[in-house]
Amino acid sequence: MTSVGEEMHALVERMYPLCRSITGDGVRATLDIVGEHVPLTRHEVPTGTQVLDWTVPQEWNIRDAYVADATGARVVDFAASSLHVLGYSVPVSARMPLAELKQHLHTLPEHPTWVPYRTSYYKPEWGFCLAQETLDALPDGEYEVVVDSTLADGHLSYAEHVVPGRVPDEVLVSCHVCHPSLANDNLAGIAVATFLARELAEREPYYTYRFVYAPGTIGAITWLARNRERVGRVKHGLVLACAGDPGNVTYKRSRRGDAEIDRVLRHVLTASQRPHKIREFTPYGYDERQYCSPGFDLAVGSLTRTPYAGYPEYHTSADDLDFVSPAAMADTLAVCREAFAVLDRNRRYLNLSPYGEPQLGRRGLYDALGGRSDTKETQMAMLWVLNLSDGEHDLIDVAERSGLPFATVADAADALAAAGLLKA
Amino acid sequence: MTSVGEEMHALVERMYPLCRSITGDGVRATLDIVGEHVPLTRHEVPTGTQVLDWTVPQEWNIRDAYVADATGARVVDFAASSLHVLGYSVPVSARMPLAELKQHLHTLPEHPTWVPYRTSYYKPEWGFCLAQETLDALPDGEYEVVVDSTLADGHLSYAEHVVPGRVPDEVLVSCHVCHPSLANDNLAGIAVATFLARELAEREPYYTYRFVYAPGTIGAITWLARNRERVGRVKHGLVLACAGDPGNVTYKRSRRGDAEIDRVLRHVLTASQRPHKIREFTPYGYDERQYCSPGFDLAVGSLTRTPYAGYPEYHTSADDLDFVSPAAMADTLAVCREAFAVLDRNRRYLNLSPYGEPQLGRRGLYDALGGRSDTKETQMAMLWVLNLSDGEHDLIDVAERSGLPFATVADAADALAAAGLLKA
Amino acid sequence: MTSVGEEMHALVERMYPLCRSITGDGVRATLDIVGEHVPLTRHEVPTGTQVLDWTVPQEWNIRDAYVADATGARVVDFAASSLHVLGYSVPVSARMPLAELKQHLHTLPEHPTWVPYRTSYYKPEWGFCLAQETLDALPDGEYEVVVDSTLADGHLSYAEHVVPGRVPDEVLVSCHVCHPSLANDNLAGIAVATFLARELAEREPYYTYRFVYAPGTIGAITWLARNRERVGRVKHGLVLACAGDPGNVTYKRSRRGDAEIDRVLRHVLTASQRPHKIREFTPYGYDERQYCSPGFDLAVGSLTRTPYAGYPEYHTSADDLDFVSPAAMADTLAVCREAFAVLDRNRRYLNLSPYGEPQLGRRGLYDALGGRSDTKETQMAMLWVLNLSDGEHDLIDVAERSGLPFATVADAADALAAAGLLKA
Repeated sequence: MTSVGEEMHALVERMYPLCRSITGDGVRATLDIVGEHVPLTRHEVPTGTQVLDWTVPQEWNIRDAYVADATGARVVDFAASSLHVLGYSVPVSARMPLAELKQHLHTLPEHPTWVPYRTSYYKPEWGFCLAQETLDALPDGEYEVVVDSTLADGHLSYAEHVVPGRVPDEVLVSCHVCHPSLANDNLAGIAVATFLARELAEREPYYTYRFVYAPGTIGAITWLARNRERVGRVKHGLVLACAGDPGNVTYKRSRRGDAEIDRVLRHVLTASQRPHKIREFTPYGYDERQYCSPGFDLAVGSLTRTPYAGYPEYHTSADDLDFVSPAAMADTLAVCREAFAVLDRNRRYLNLSPYGEPQLGRRGLYDALGGRSDTKETQMAMLWVLNLSDGEHDLIDVAERSGLPFATVADAADALAAAGLLKA
Repeated sequence: MTSVGEEMHALVERMYPLCRSITGDGVRATLDIVGEHVPLTRHEVPTGTQVLDWTVPQEWNIRDAYVADATGARVVDFAASSLHVLGYSVPVSARMPLAELKQHLHTLPEHPTWVPYRTSYYKPEWGFCLAQETLDALPDGEYEVVVDSTLADGHLSYAEHVVPGRVPDEVLVSCHVCHPSLANDNLAGIAVATFLARELAEREPYYTYRFVYAPGTIGAITWLARNRERVGRVKHGLVLACAGDPGNVTYKRSRRGDAEIDRVLRHVLTASQRPHKIREFTPYGYDERQYCSPGFDLAVGSLTRTPYAGYPEYHTSADDLDFVSPAAMADTLAVCREAFAVLDRNRRYLNLSPYGEPQLGRRGLYDALGGRSDTKETQMAMLWVLNLSDGEHDLIDVAERSGLPFATVADAADALAAAGLLKA
Repeated sequence: MTSVGEEMHALVERMYPLCRSITGDGVRATLDIVGEHVPLTRHEVPTGTQVLDWTVPQEWNIRDAYVADATGARVVDFAASSLHVLGYSVPVSARMPLAELKQHLHTLPEHPTWVPYRTSYYKPEWGFCLAQETLDALPDGEYEVVVDSTLADGHLSYAEHVVPGRVPDEVLVSCHVCHPSLANDNLAGIAVATFLARELAEREPYYTYRFVYAPGTIGAITWLARNRERVGRVKHGLVLACAGDPGNVTYKRSRRGDAEIDRVLRHVLTASQRPHKIREFTPYGYDERQYCSPGFDLAVGSLTRTPYAGYPEYHTSADDLDFVSPAAMADTLAVCREAFAVLDRNRRYLNLSPYGEPQLGRRGLYDALGGRSDTKETQMAMLWVLNLSDGEHDLIDVAERSGLPFATVADAADALAAAGLLKA
């Protein structure tokens, strides 16, 4: 019997070796794997397409890349890790002395055994990333340098999965699929999103949940450009990233700061008594940068464990399969589950009998024996819902003002609505 | 020479033995006693009258009730305390073994010497309340059970007393009169309300003060139903309850939270440096539940000492004449006196000379000798009133922003108005 | 090489001996000295002119004043300090016993060696101010009393200096010039204002800066009365006083409390990590009382070191040349310089490419190498400015939300505006 955390970790393991970038076959292969778990609608957007202020770039694919020493031995080898090549490296095949080669080598001197992750999407460049200790061991002399890559007109690939709800209003869950062999950033996010989608489908949710798997920045911009007319349907959203590291969960508010999704996450994280952090919006990080640009200003927050760039392993080879755990991913999934359970039931109700308290007793909703001081939570919840159902307060307000569990409050609202005392 | 605290306690003592309920002669006898202190307008509302979502119930009266043992000795006797009978008990005359009787007995196991207060207004039931230790001492065997009560069409009784003011805008002071022999809940509240009414009449208040003595819940609902058209005149209000226990005074805000009455009480309690608590509104407690239902949403707060259900003696025989003190009732009365003194003088003024400071000196309102740093409070109060009299701030704002006593600020406003520099 | 602090102190020294009051030649002589540093527009407003609720009083001038003992020796002498005579003393020439004279003598018993500053502008009176120990040493007997002053129709004098800006919107800097030999109150303020004006002229500021040198209260009221139609041009302002004492700098907010000038000063004082205090508005102090009267309600705050009446030397002979230091005045000047540098660049911009992030890279505004976590401050500043440039936030908001230095943020805005991505 495999736990969901272990299943998600297994999915991360399968995707880990692939060389992803903002375009190319690595992204397609990743989407193929995700597609085995949830049905995906795939999109291929041609090079040169105008997307908002940007243009879809040429497609990048790579077959091999290495640096070989005088003996022909590969001292840096793409086959060992997709991180070894600078993302979007132009092709090269040359021999050069170490001094010249060094201008194309990227290391992390402060972590001499780690390989950094570097890219050059928009400036034609080639390069290799390697451990500082590998570099230090290279003798002077001539090296052979090969990047067998292609930069050519092609497509940008992304995919969507929709869990239909009872209303067309949408909740967007977005995760970036452009990073190569980095487990936490963002294979863990992809895995959590995928298992979340499967769970939601079983629940027949109120909202329609749209999952977007797209490359960072240019992918989100492409999605926004192609959905500009219907983006108003997105009422709430989460960018999922860094979902598996050992840190506590962190919620970064949407640009609006007090959107319903922000209130939901604050409520759920507080009520669950998980250690957590809530951060104000900043225009840096993942694709909330695009969704929360001032023209769109969507109610999209960001859920991570340790946030963007907040851990030393970030964008290095140390963000590997050991860095993410089944337990951490299962906890991130649980936060999503709890948050969307609240979001799905949260409403502003209107008390249809607002003058004085309605007589709950004759409707079988209130204890007959009076005088006791141990009024039940369910009765308190009904009084709170009735009192605050003036069109100004939603059930999260009721839960927070009353100190009662959200589910108790929502159950009370259901009972009152069934008795004809409330309408949504 | 009797203090007002002692006078109020004497009034509590007279009302204490009566068996009050939400209807019946006990309420009428209580209103008779109150009517000896302040003139009352009495209302009798027939059984079956629709009042908002409720219906006025049958009237309940009781002459005798007891449980007698095999020797004929009364082991539980209504004559000893009105608490011994379940409120609204239907009549019964029967003999039964202890085991069967026990289903109708109510005790407080955690306080074995106290008798609880219990009711069953809306479900026909009979029962007795007794001390746990009394119950424990009852031998098995057969008992005679008698409740000589009447449930019949009749009336719900309540009363009003009005202290006329200079304006028709009203301040509502409401207290419940439905509890039997419980001193703090709410004979102390009735006593404070009554002596407050007498004091206010001597003061020729600005507002019209309306005192409502009515049974809890159904009484307030009846008053609201019968005053639905004129309830808009109620600009401020207080529900008075638990006015005599040893705890510190507690103010529970109106549902609005920042109504003028809320600001008045916060100001007075803070400025007086009394130990006190201010609580947010909750839809539970006394008749603020009805006045603050969302359809009415009146600016009615609740003043108590220890709040509703906040003390072990609550709704038990331990809420007796010793539990309430003259000093505590006198202090509650003083809070009301201070609060209504502020409320009555609080205004938003308009500075009629708002461009620069008016020259107070030539109007005799400012010291002639300049250069000193010990400017008098009265002068500072005038500068503050002038500066904040823009139609946005009232005198409470001025007192709080300036740190000056409210009375000094109000006197300054009077002086400025007399000089033609302000208008209300 | 003289520091600006020393230059300001030298200016204070020159003005110190003059006998200033709300009218008269002492004010004119003071404005003559200021006029040597910055060109002034002088105004002379005739006695009897109606100014708002006030009337320009008669002009007061004084040539000599003394108390002489039986031997003819001057025991109190105006020639020694302008403080010795009650401001606006009517002329007197008389002989009287000490007991009668004492009714006209003002001392500070708690500081027996200090001479107080006292005035009687609006009630005809004569008097002398002296040290308590001087008074204590006076033997009984007869004294000669002379005040050789004139109270006659004349003028109230004030002056303005304008530093033209790129826009006609004005920043008002106001300082009172009516106090006699008191160094901190307000010669230091006059000196800081004057050197600030000289600096601003070199900077070609955005706003037009208007410096007003006028007697306290009646002078500000006169200026407001004569500029009533154009006072709307004053968008921001500072009253400068007590600019040279040893205390920390204090900013007193405008009556509005959150005007742009209030936000600028809070930002600058916080960001500079100076020890400082920020106080809420009070309708007492210096001429902010008039500028912030509710009819005008100008966005004028007050900058001092120790505020009004907040030090024992206040309005006494101990507020002398030693009480104010070059360093303190230089620091006050620096606060003004920093504040106006922020104010001058603060804008609300509109992002002209608000849908997604604009591609900064192809405009040369963003690093080509991706993946690193050490994003530069300048790039972060651009992202913040773009994200918050929705017409609702100004650059101070951006600086405070981002934690970036204001100048970095303003430079980023300039770069983005130059790239056509923003408009003011």
